[in-house]
Amino acid sequence: MQNPSEVSNVADNAEPVTFHSRVSIEQVEEGRELAPKFDRDNLIVSITTDAESGEVLMLGYMNEEALTKTIQTGEAHYWSRSRQVLWHKGATSGLVQVVEELRIDDDQDAVWLRVRVGGTGASCHVGYRSCFYRQVPIGAQRKDGEMLRFTEASKTFDPVQVYGDEPNPTIL
Amino acid sequence: MQNPSEVSNVADNAEPVTFHSRVSIEQVEEGRELAPKFDRDNLIVSITTDAESGEVLMLGYMNEEALTKTIQTGEAHYWSRSRQVLWHKGATSGLVQVVEELRIDDDQDAVWLRVRVGGTGASCHVGYRSCFYRQVPIGAQRKDGEMLRFTEASKTFDPVQVYGDEPNPTIL
Repeated sequence: MQNPSEVSNVADNAEPVTFHSRVSIEQVEEGRELAPKFDRDNLIVSITTDAESGEVLMLGYMNEEALTKTIQTGEAHYWSRSRQVLWHKGATSGLVQVVEELRIDDDQDAVWLRVRVGGTGASCHVGYRSCFYRQVPIGAQRKDGEMLRFTEASKTFDPVQVYGDEPNPTIL
Repeated sequence: MQNPSEVSNVADNAEPVTFHSRVSIEQVEEGRELAPKFDRDNLIVSITTDAESGEVLMLGYMNEEALTKTIQTGEAHYWSRSRQVLWHKGATSGLVQVVEELRIDDDQDAVWLRVRVGGTGASCHVGYRSCFYRQVPIGAQRKDGEMLRFTEASKTFDPVQVYGDEPNPTIL
């Protein structure tokens, strides 16, 4: 989850994006029509990876408008669930995500963005490069009851300097 | 989404896994306690990537039991939303996912599995290597109204041979 920010102000003179109705499994899985399945909150889940390293940077959600703007502008837009606003990633922090490739999965209920991040290259509101900065030891890796292990030695930016006293988006 | 299969029969003599209560933002974001947030369906979203190539293979969901078994056994377990069963990935197809690394994100409501896949290396019930076998052209990539473009030239296995007449898990 990320610290949301201002709504995108990119001009809407781009080609419109059409979402098709979902009519058959063959159409959805094997077809060339974009027919995304938005959930009961009208959202589709979105995975963001670093286009170069392949590292997963964050997991977010998009509504129809966010997906449309991402397709039209080539910059990642999400729906902020904590703030309930359209969120042009990087509008506050400068850490814009330029999308190199957007993919959709077999049943079209998830998307994957391969991005290049501006600025320091960070994507996490806590200050780390990736939101996934802690490892859970599994199987033979487990020892002494350790549950989480940090994978990034230090933060790439100071969230207080970047976000000031904006409320933290993490919900308990 | 994947074609679910039998419940894991791995023996439960492993160290127990403790999920902590979520008491503060500092604990959740900066701490070393595993305190996952399961959603209103008691699920946590899970990203699966190929440990070698970094390719996103699938997006799935885990309940407490699936996450526990993944941590204990080092093999990916999910909750099948279409079948409403615990799902030991690969139990039918042989395409078991051996987890090299499990990570959790800042607010602990998403996990990321880096896996090595057995057999043909496929992870998608449609027969492709990755579930994300179609690209959505964005920005300057868009032309002639094309909405989806295939990124894998052919399937890695024949789903009819592997799954027979099991119902397709895609929900319209």
